[in-house]
Amino acid sequence: MKVKPMDDRVLVELLEEETKTASGIIIPDTAKEKPTMGKVIAVGTDEDLKEYIKEGDKILFGKYGGEDITLDGKDYKIIQRSDILAILED
Amino acid sequence: MKVKPMDDRVLVELLEEETKTASGIIIPDTAKEKPTMGKVIAVGTDEDLKEYIKEGDKILFGKYGGEDITLDGKDYKIIQRSDILAILED
Amino acid sequence: MKVKPMDDRVLVELLEEETKTASGIIIPDTAKEKPTMGKVIAVGTDEDLKEYIKEGDKILFGKYGGEDITLDGKDYKIIQRSDILAILED
Amino acid sequence: MKVKPMDDRVLVELLEEETKTASGIIIPDTAKEKPTMGKVIAVGTDEDLKEYIKEGDKILFGKYGGEDITLDGKDYKIIQRSDILAILED
Amino acid sequence: MKVKPMDDRVLVELLEEETKTASGIIIPDTAKEKPTMGKVIAVGTDEDLKEYIKEGDKILFGKYGGEDITLDGKDYKIIQRSDILAILED
Amino acid sequence: MKVKPMDDRVLVELLEEETKTASGIIIPDTAKEKPTMGKVIAVGTDEDLKEYIKEGDKILFGKYGGEDITLDGKDYKIIQRSDILAILED
Amino acid sequence: MKVKPMDDRVLVELLEEETKTASGIIIPDTAKEKPTMGKVIAVGTDEDLKEYIKEGDKILFGKYGGEDITLDGKDYKIIQRSDILAILED
Repeated sequence: MKVKPMDDRVLVELLEEETKTASGIIIPDTAKEKPTMGKVIAVGTDEDLKEYIKEGDKILFGKYGGEDITLDGKDYKIIQRSDILAILED
Repeated sequence: MKVKPMDDRVLVELLEEETKTASGIIIPDTAKEKPTMGKVIAVGTDEDLKEYIKEGDKILFGKYGGEDITLDGKDYKIIQRSDILAILED
Repeated sequence: MKVKPMDDRVLVELLEEETKTASGIIIPDTAKEKPTMGKVIAVGTDEDLKEYIKEGDKILFGKYGGEDITLDGKDYKIIQRSDILAILED
Repeated sequence: MKVKPMDDRVLVELLEEETKTASGIIIPDTAKEKPTMGKVIAVGTDEDLKEYIKEGDKILFGKYGGEDITLDGKDYKIIQRSDILAILED
Repeated sequence: MKVKPMDDRVLVELLEEETKTASGIIIPDTAKEKPTMGKVIAVGTDEDLKEYIKEGDKILFGKYGGEDITLDGKDYKIIQRSDILAILED
Repeated sequence: MKVKPMDDRVLVELLEEETKTASGIIIPDTAKEKPTMGKVIAVGTDEDLKEYIKEGDKILFGKYGGEDITLDGKDYKIIQRSDILAILED
Repeated sequence: MKVKPMDDRVLVELLEEETKTASGIIIPDTAKEKPTMGKVIAVGTDEDLKEYIKEGDKILFGKYGGEDITLDGKDYKIIQRSDILAILED
């Protein structure tokens, strides 16, 4: 079973905060409360959004944005484009 | 008697949470309070919406979205496009 | 004297809840408080609305929507398109 | 001196509730508090509005809509299009 | 020194209520609190507004609208188009 | 170092109230609290705004509008077009 | 790892207030509470924004705008175009 986000939403798998690492690691300032980094699992039906976000992208999003869902015990969020702050590139 | 949703709304039959199942089962995180998964019974009059949602589709929607109606003892909701989070594909 | 609703409004005659009937009867979940089903008596001046709603149609509308008026002792409501949830078809 | 309403407003003379009459008489449900029926004295400068509303038309409007003015001891209201609920036709 | 209102604003000189006069005199209902009639001294930079309002026009405006300024001891207001209710014509 | 306002903003140097002067002097009614007159030091990047406002113009603006900044001990404000009430012309 | 802001956002490195300096130094009035000056590290995906803001630009932004993130112990903000007040040019 697959989850296809509607319109300009993305489905993200929540990523643990990667703290205490050497250089290049991003820690959302407010991450102490709730992670706000995620890996995109599926991109919505909106054509314009697909030009900017691909499956596998890591994104930052506002910690109050999105709707929580659980799939096989893992935490996911469905997030609207307006809550996506940035894409993390390697 | 049929219910034809107006504009960009859909009529959904509420689905029980399919918990305790093996792989591939989605459980809305907040489902303990109220199910937010439904099967589309009828799609609204909006032409654009019909390109994305068909009768029989299973959808996820925000738990505070939609208006409740009862038809022959079963619970239904009429939900606007902006409250549809995702389509579940097999 | 006729009532011509302005713009995208309709004039509806409030319908009693048709409870305790066999199959095919719709009862708004919240109907215990106030009926939200009505028969369209007149459609507004908006051309686009006329393509979707005709006189005689039965519609469902949000229970807080619309403005109440009384005509010859019967209850009517004037309802905007955005409060029309669905059209009931036989 | 004439009052020319600005943009999509109309100037209306407030009409007394025509209660206790035989068939065909409209009484706003909330008329006990304040009349919401009026005769159009002047239509605003908006060209589109003029296609729907003429001087002499009787209209229904939301009881909280409009601004009160007094002209030679009579009560008038200046009402925006969005507060006009319906036109009453003979 | 001249005051040129910005965009769709007008500069008006506040007019005293012309009460106790014979026929044709307009008294804003709420004028007991604050005058809401004014003579247009200058029209803003907006081209569309100039088609409807000219210098010297008397206008009615919502009593909470506009910003007060004082010029040589006289009271003026700068009022946006959306607060202009009507133009008074002789 | 120069301050280039973004989009439809202007940078203004706050002007002292020019009270007790003879004819032609404008005193914002509420100036007792805070000056709302300023001289434009820089106009934003918005092309349309440049047609109406030039460096050196004196403008009136709403006293709650704008963001305060200090440059070399002088008070400045960055003000959006929607808060500019009028341009003062000699 | 690089942070690519989404849509019309920029990533900025927060700059210390440069107080007690000679001429030409800008101190946001409210800087006592929180710095609101930053150096642009990355510009968002929005094509129009790129015409106005470049990497390396120093900008002023509203102190309540933006989302805080931390990267390798340094404070950053992700700021939307509507919160960018001005660009500082040398």
